[in-house]
Amino acid sequence: MTDQPQDRPRTPLLDRVSSPEDLKRFSDADLTRLAGELRSETISAVSETGGHLGAGLGVVELTVGIHAVFDTPRDTLVWDVGHQAYPHKILTGRRDRIRTLRQGGGLSGFTKRSESAYDPFGAAHSSTSISSALGFAAARDLGYGEGRHSIAVIGDGALSAGMAYEAMNNAGHLGLPLIVILNDNEMSIAPPVGAMSRYLTSLWMGAPFQDFAAAAKGAANLLPGPFREGAKRAKEMLKGLAVGGTLFEALGFSYVGPIDGHDLDQILPVLRTVKARAHGPVLIHAITKKGKGYAPAERAADKYHGVSKFDVATGAQKKAPSNAPSYTAVFAEALIAAGERDDRVVGITAAMPDGTGLDKFGKRFPKRMYDVGIAEQHAVTFAAGMAASGMKPFCAIYSTFLQRAYDQVVHDVALQGLPVRFAIDRAGLVGADGATHAGSFDVGFLANLPGMVVMAAADEADLARMVATSVAHDDGPSAFRYPRGEGVGVELPPFDEVLEIGRGRVMREGGAVAILSFGGRLAECMAAAEELDARGVSATVADARFAKPLDRDLILRLAREHRALLTVEEGATGGFGSQVLHLLATEGALDRGLAVRPMVLPDLFLDHDAPAKMYAQAGLDAGAIASTALSALGVAAIDRAGLA
Amino acid sequence: MTDQPQDRPRTPLLDRVSSPEDLKRFSDADLTRLAGELRSETISAVSETGGHLGAGLGVVELTVGIHAVFDTPRDTLVWDVGHQAYPHKILTGRRDRIRTLRQGGGLSGFTKRSESAYDPFGAAHSSTSISSALGFAAARDLGYGEGRHSIAVIGDGALSAGMAYEAMNNAGHLGLPLIVILNDNEMSIAPPVGAMSRYLTSLWMGAPFQDFAAAAKGAANLLPGPFREGAKRAKEMLKGLAVGGTLFEALGFSYVGPIDGHDLDQILPVLRTVKARAHGPVLIHAITKKGKGYAPAERAADKYHGVSKFDVATGAQKKAPSNAPSYTAVFAEALIAAGERDDRVVGITAAMPDGTGLDKFGKRFPKRMYDVGIAEQHAVTFAAGMAASGMKPFCAIYSTFLQRAYDQVVHDVALQGLPVRFAIDRAGLVGADGATHAGSFDVGFLANLPGMVVMAAADEADLARMVATSVAHDDGPSAFRYPRGEGVGVELPPFDEVLEIGRGRVMREGGAVAILSFGGRLAECMAAAEELDARGVSATVADARFAKPLDRDLILRLAREHRALLTVEEGATGGFGSQVLHLLATEGALDRGLAVRPMVLPDLFLDHDAPAKMYAQAGLDAGAIASTALSALGVAAIDRAGLA
Repeated sequence: MTDQPQDRPRTPLLDRVSSPEDLKRFSDADLTRLAGELRSETISAVSETGGHLGAGLGVVELTVGIHAVFDTPRDTLVWDVGHQAYPHKILTGRRDRIRTLRQGGGLSGFTKRSESAYDPFGAAHSSTSISSALGFAAARDLGYGEGRHSIAVIGDGALSAGMAYEAMNNAGHLGLPLIVILNDNEMSIAPPVGAMSRYLTSLWMGAPFQDFAAAAKGAANLLPGPFREGAKRAKEMLKGLAVGGTLFEALGFSYVGPIDGHDLDQILPVLRTVKARAHGPVLIHAITKKGKGYAPAERAADKYHGVSKFDVATGAQKKAPSNAPSYTAVFAEALIAAGERDDRVVGITAAMPDGTGLDKFGKRFPKRMYDVGIAEQHAVTFAAGMAASGMKPFCAIYSTFLQRAYDQVVHDVALQGLPVRFAIDRAGLVGADGATHAGSFDVGFLANLPGMVVMAAADEADLARMVATSVAHDDGPSAFRYPRGEGVGVELPPFDEVLEIGRGRVMREGGAVAILSFGGRLAECMAAAEELDARGVSATVADARFAKPLDRDLILRLAREHRALLTVEEGATGGFGSQVLHLLATEGALDRGLAVRPMVLPDLFLDHDAPAKMYAQAGLDAGAIASTALSALGVAAIDRAGLA
Repeated sequence: MTDQPQDRPRTPLLDRVSSPEDLKRFSDADLTRLAGELRSETISAVSETGGHLGAGLGVVELTVGIHAVFDTPRDTLVWDVGHQAYPHKILTGRRDRIRTLRQGGGLSGFTKRSESAYDPFGAAHSSTSISSALGFAAARDLGYGEGRHSIAVIGDGALSAGMAYEAMNNAGHLGLPLIVILNDNEMSIAPPVGAMSRYLTSLWMGAPFQDFAAAAKGAANLLPGPFREGAKRAKEMLKGLAVGGTLFEALGFSYVGPIDGHDLDQILPVLRTVKARAHGPVLIHAITKKGKGYAPAERAADKYHGVSKFDVATGAQKKAPSNAPSYTAVFAEALIAAGERDDRVVGITAAMPDGTGLDKFGKRFPKRMYDVGIAEQHAVTFAAGMAASGMKPFCAIYSTFLQRAYDQVVHDVALQGLPVRFAIDRAGLVGADGATHAGSFDVGFLANLPGMVVMAAADEADLARMVATSVAHDDGPSAFRYPRGEGVGVELPPFDEVLEIGRGRVMREGGAVAILSFGGRLAECMAAAEELDARGVSATVADARFAKPLDRDLILRLAREHRALLTVEEGATGGFGSQVLHLLATEGALDRGLAVRPMVLPDLFLDHDAPAKMYAQAGLDAGAIASTALSALGVAAIDRAGLA
């Protein structure tokens, strides 16, 4: 919350809007003025909270236009990704909480069903909107959702994902009424890549924006009545009759545009015409600018995609000083060092060059960095093809997005034993981005795969070692995970220090309880051991380093020599702890009793908050670890000697 | 192996081919004759082994043409899916083993790296070929694989998968030399769906096949030299200059075709021209017929996609008589019954209407069955959209293919708690289709998700109950898995019999050991208990039914009342057994000793064989279960009383 409400923008029109229904009473000219106020309010709010700014500023006019023309929430409006929906939230009854965005207990930074009826389908991962909007359209077709329009707003970057294509292919086949608004700002998070992006540019480069009347007329001409039969349209396309958008027409969509996505005098008539006359799937191609209307954002290379709190007048962001390099930065450094040593090392990112640090690798080795677009499936199998050619590909993908490529990891990489390396950033809880971005499941879905090596870094020094270990491990696939944010501040080792596969390390020896950490909770485990010291309980702490292959000798020894064994990880059930339990059980190490306690993320989707608070809530901080150790020993102590 | 070698076709030309190198000495006319022999040999082999026939027959001429023109294996040839590669296997040194196809110890029914250098990238799941071929092309570009051509052959059905689009989008962007041969037979497994399919038809409907000279000239004209700059091509396309294929040109490919994929007089000159002149990505559009040249296949609705052993003269397939309905058939019946009771029940398949039984549901409820194409990602989020509208969508997807939609299951379904129902066919080992089709990981990747209900059917009666249970469970997502093949022959219950969520059932009570089954191994567990009876060891057998939520009371009681507890499932680590171990550990049920033994699939990819043999190899048959029980009790017995 701000302490300077007097600095807030004047918003006389916006102040009269408590729900989209209120927009119906505004003149078109007032809607344009309202859009200006909505933009100011968005900037003001994000300056206080931080978050995604550029994307929201790019869709202010579209947001006003859609809510003015359609009857939300009866008409279902799905924002792709949802990070551009702050203006939408302001218009849909959430203005009073807009300055709690991404704060603990506050509004989500994405659309969320549990937050509002105006969010009929939540998002945060890209390219899901056409599929879900088509689901709403199909339900209406079957009599559930009578009369409603189904609208998806999707960015050009999101169109690089195969899922969006699958949805268009199916939508064109079904021919149900569906409105897709292509928000073409030539930017996803990074500058666009891929042939589709070039194609979209070609559509509007040659076609200057139409004026008010022409836009309406154009839309009407393109939608002359009932859905036209496929063969006829295909024939027209082959004849070259269509001015543009033939790719979308080939997929069964009527194409309307391009229009100026910041001009309500174009947006409103086009939306009204499409609403009144469209009988099948329609794609409205709107050209927008990310960061529109806020000079510091428009000037910035990333268009203020994601920002910290900032000063509205200057645009200066208020970043907390950092004490240690981020894991991402260490990964990038270590990979560059590996690239210097071995020209077979290549980097692959799915539209996250900056977030993964591969932009730095790409600067050093331009030919050896591939940004394939929002296309994790392709990224992994492309990497597999390179690995089959003797290269050493590193797929740097956030844990949560690697879920998109699971089958490719199984079928194209693991099954063939190909040495693709997975650099899994944002493992564990991630803070303000919330449950949709948590990296909770990767250890579970990777450690079950035959032949996969799965590592987790306890600190940035070990991350550097794991990069080198992956480079050296050429017999099959490997993966290493590491958290979001800063390292713990330890000194970095030489970048060619390789770990022995399947060997953990003992951090301290104790007697009563063993705490076996996998990943970034190691510091909390050490702190827990100190708490236990204070209670007179002696704890061993070990860093497993590997979830696969497990350090069998270490784990079985810990089981033998302690009365209780805790495993601690930043992940769900089915991961590291499950692998350890499976080993202990099959080796008979549980037969005579062991107070084993697997500590994992709780079985619920945790809402966004500060990471430390989330881990406390998850029961994975030092205090929770220590008390779990005590209670495990207490139970075991019934049959045995005292503590120590 | 056949016992009638005298019935084999005469193949004088084919007999001279031991590797593709030998084709280089053939005249074009002889290559056409060779294709005829290759077709006969393929038919003859599959008549003895069963397997995929129609697809291979459709690419006989393409196979001959590619190997005649290109220098495999230096030039990397990737067959999408790989089930059409039997003729390829015959030409590439595997003819002597072609009659072992899909038999234990024999050739794989798909391409496989470990089988031959001529299979540079294995497959079995659809739509991976362009990505991997682009990987080879990129490696060449970096100096690894000098001078080699990279070729992918992909069917029109496979183009409905987003992954293929992602790959084309990236290929068009990179502009590297890459040859994609679109094998357009208008059939994937079922008749094609989707707008792309309609578009492809439009390309060749208006354009009769060109003759020899025109085809070569056409290819040359389309490839005038170095890769043309994107803007120029886009401009030409906008002008309507291109005759066809603008969709592919929009994605950065040069488009060549359509050509007759059964006419080597067209195939050879086009391939030679493309080989000599292409400098960027090229798509060759070949029209073929699935089942070509074998009348029974051409006549059949499914074009002999997958066949049993058959009589070559008549085409009559030799199917073993079945004793019980297949799980798939029971699922279909139960879902139709649910559909009769509730008009919100809809079925969604990703190009597997026949394999999943949804074809029957679709016959009964044509408007409520959706075949979205090979598009599992879209299928799941489309279902989520319908669920958000109050529908009751059933996504019927094989376990192995559900991997394609993992992120959608997490992000669009589980995170929002939407009641999408997952009917997971082909759970566990699947026999002749081998490791690529095994359903090993679904319990692991589903049971970790908050709010997900995960069931497995021990027999077809329970499958029917689980369908009804899923219909009734509207609070969140649910999944039920069931094996490939026939049920066990039990009587079916009324189709509205609903299970209590999270309750297992005890099949027999015993004293020493508890065997807790999850899924289709229950009969083996019962048989194991009988073996144990014979050894004087009394066993309880329970059917867990639910991996999530677990039947806590049942499991904790079994742990309390037995000295050993086995879990048995048709899946990898991290699944049901891990959930049970996690529960036992966190509840302290292991503290004082329990000989718990999680029995899961072994940590390796099992090659194809008869399912019973595979399960024996996996150590999951009655004998292995009984001996695991004995050894667990033996260990536990050291500290405790004797058996019984």
